[in-house]
Amino acid sequence: MQPKPTVQGLPVYQPGKPIDEVKREYGLQHVIKLASNENPFGCSPYVLEHLLPSAKEAALYPDGAARELREQMARHLGIEEGQLLFGNGSDELVQLISRCYLQPGTNAVMADVTFPRYETNCRIEGADVIKVPLKDGTHDLDAMAQAVNDETKVVWLCNPNNPTGTMVTHDDVVQFLDQIPSSALVVMDEAYVEYVTDDRFPDSLSLLSEYPNLIILRTFSKIYGLASLRVGYGIASPDILTELNRVREPFNVNALAQRAGVLALEDQSFVQDCRTKNTSGIEQLTSAFDRLNMRYFPSQANFVFVQTGVPSEEVFQHLLEQGIIVRHDTSWGFPTGIRVTIGSQEENAAFIQALEQFIQKRGRERVL
Amino acid sequence: MQPKPTVQGLPVYQPGKPIDEVKREYGLQHVIKLASNENPFGCSPYVLEHLLPSAKEAALYPDGAARELREQMARHLGIEEGQLLFGNGSDELVQLISRCYLQPGTNAVMADVTFPRYETNCRIEGADVIKVPLKDGTHDLDAMAQAVNDETKVVWLCNPNNPTGTMVTHDDVVQFLDQIPSSALVVMDEAYVEYVTDDRFPDSLSLLSEYPNLIILRTFSKIYGLASLRVGYGIASPDILTELNRVREPFNVNALAQRAGVLALEDQSFVQDCRTKNTSGIEQLTSAFDRLNMRYFPSQANFVFVQTGVPSEEVFQHLLEQGIIVRHDTSWGFPTGIRVTIGSQEENAAFIQALEQFIQKRGRERVL
Repeated sequence: MQPKPTVQGLPVYQPGKPIDEVKREYGLQHVIKLASNENPFGCSPYVLEHLLPSAKEAALYPDGAARELREQMARHLGIEEGQLLFGNGSDELVQLISRCYLQPGTNAVMADVTFPRYETNCRIEGADVIKVPLKDGTHDLDAMAQAVNDETKVVWLCNPNNPTGTMVTHDDVVQFLDQIPSSALVVMDEAYVEYVTDDRFPDSLSLLSEYPNLIILRTFSKIYGLASLRVGYGIASPDILTELNRVREPFNVNALAQRAGVLALEDQSFVQDCRTKNTSGIEQLTSAFDRLNMRYFPSQANFVFVQTGVPSEEVFQHLLEQGIIVRHDTSWGFPTGIRVTIGSQEENAAFIQALEQFIQKRGRERVL
Repeated sequence: MQPKPTVQGLPVYQPGKPIDEVKREYGLQHVIKLASNENPFGCSPYVLEHLLPSAKEAALYPDGAARELREQMARHLGIEEGQLLFGNGSDELVQLISRCYLQPGTNAVMADVTFPRYETNCRIEGADVIKVPLKDGTHDLDAMAQAVNDETKVVWLCNPNNPTGTMVTHDDVVQFLDQIPSSALVVMDEAYVEYVTDDRFPDSLSLLSEYPNLIILRTFSKIYGLASLRVGYGIASPDILTELNRVREPFNVNALAQRAGVLALEDQSFVQDCRTKNTSGIEQLTSAFDRLNMRYFPSQANFVFVQTGVPSEEVFQHLLEQGIIVRHDTSWGFPTGIRVTIGSQEENAAFIQALEQFIQKRGRERVL
C-alpha cells in the first residue's frame, strides 16, 4: 500500500505541545502561549451564552450550505450571498483550492517565507512550487509577477504575511493583479485583516468585480477568537466557488462553528476592543525590542517577528522553561528570529521580562 | 481559471432542504426528517451538560493529535492509541484515503450502489471507478475480489451498506480479504456498526493484525447523535495512519467535537438504549411493509430500504407534503425504492400511516 508518489515522504505535521504538557514537563503552574496567533482575550462571551444546541439538534447534520451564516456574513460585508464559501477553518479553503486547480505539470507561486500550508497542499497535488524571496520581510510583488508563467494556476499572497506580519498596500496589489494572467487564481489570505490599522491596506472586496480571478480568505480563528471551532471563509466570484464546491465535503463546517460565527458577527464591539488592545500590545513589544536593539518587521497582525540576535532555538528553549511558548522554525531562514503572538498586557510584560533577562545573562556569559 | 480536468463538470453536492424550509414551503407546523440516518433520540444529555468551553478555550486551536479522545477511544476499543486517526466526520477519512492513495492510472473497487462519497472522491483524484453490482442488495464479495487488479489501490466496503442496510458476515470478509493483494487498501466503513444485532457481523478489529492493508471507519454521527459536530475515526495499522497524516489538515477536528466524543463514550447506556429502540423500530416498519406487500432488504442499520411499488419520486413528494422527509435517488437503480431512517415510535407510525394512505389512494386511482 504505497501512497501516490507526491505524498510519499511528505513531512507529517507535528502538533505543538499543549499548555498542559508544558506545565507537566517543566513543573510549571502557569504557562503563557504566544505561539499560535490566538486571541488572548478569548471569544465574545455573548457567543458562548447562546451557542449550546439541544440534544436533538446536536444529532442533525449541519446545514451544508451554511445558510444563516452566509446571510449574516453577506450583510456584514455588503456582498452577495453567492460570493461566499465556508470551510473547516481557512486551512480547508487552502486545501480545496489546491485540490481543485493543481496537478502535476502546473505550478503555484508563493513567497519565501509564508504560511506553510500553501506549499504542503501544492506538493500533495504534485504541482511545482515556485518560491519568491521576501524583500525586507515583505512580499516582493514585482518578482512574484515575473515568476508567474503559463503553467501557474495559483498565486498565494498572505496579507498581512505570516510569519513576518508585514503588509502590501492597495496600490501594490492593483499593480500586481494587472500583471497576472486570468488563467491564474490569485489567493489573498487575509486571516489577520481585522487587526490591520494601516489605511493603505487593500480594500480587497472592491477588487473582486474587476479581477474575477481573485479569491479572498478570512477566518473566525483570529480576532473572533473561535480557533477551537474551525470556521473560515472564501470570498470570490460564484464561478470560482462553483468549482471549489465540487471538491468540498458536503458537511465540512460543523453546526456550532456556523452558529458561533453568526453570534460573533453580532458583537463587533468585542472585535474593536481586541483590535485596540492588539495595537497597544504591538507598541508594548516593539518599544521593548527598540530598547534591546533588536530588529523586527513592522506588523499589521497579532504577532511580531523579531530577530533576537541569539540563535532562535536557544531563545525558544529558555522561554519555554519560563513557561512562555513562542514560535521558531529553522525553515524561516532567520537564524535568530522568533514569532511572538501579542498577548494581554501582562503576558506581553512577562515575555519581555523573560527575554530581557535571558539576553542579559547570555550576553554576560558571552563576555566572560 | 479552469479547474484540473478530473474536477471539471463533477456534480456539485445539493444539500437537502432543512426542516425549516420544508415547513415554510408546505405550510406545515411539524416536519419529521427520516432522510439522513440521524439519531431521532438526539445525543446523550450528559454530553451537552459538560460540553461548553470557556471563552478563553474557545480561542485556542484544537489539539491536532486529539490526545484525550484518542486515549479514551483506545481504552474503549481495547486497541493501541497509535491505531487511531480522527477526522471531520468519517467523510473526511474517505477524502484522506482517496487523496493519499489514488491518482490517474489507479482504480478503486466499490459496490453499485453504496455510499456516494467514495466515487466522488475517487473521481476528484482521477482514479478509475470499478463498480460491482449488489446481489440481493448485498455486497457481492466474490465479484468484487475478481474485479481487483494490479492497479487497484482502494476497495470500499460499506458494512452495513448504505443505502440498502444489508451486511456481509465475518466469514465472508475473511474469505474476501484472503483474495485481496496487499497492494490494495481495504476500507471497511462501519458507520452503523453500533446498531448491528446479528452475531455473524465481522469482528473487524480482530482482523487488523492479520490484514495490515485493512482500515475500519466509524463515526459519532450515527448512534452517538453527534452529526452536527463532525467527528469520525479510522482504525488501522500505524503505517497506514502515518501516510494519511501526511495529507491531513493539522487542526481538522474541532475542539468541541473532540470533547463531545470523550463525553459520549462515557455514556454507553445511551447507546444501548438507542440500539434497543432501533431494533424495535425496524420491526415496526418491516411488519408494516409485510402487511403492505412491499419488498425490503433486511437491515442491520438505522434505516430500511423498501421498494414501494410506486415511482419513488411520487412517494417522496407525497410524504414531503405530509411533512415527512425520506430519501430517494434515481442513481440507486431501484425505481420504486426509498430509504427511510428509523425514527421514534411515533415518527415511524406517522410515516407508515402516510405511506399506507398514499398507496391506498393511488391504488384506487389506478383502478379507476
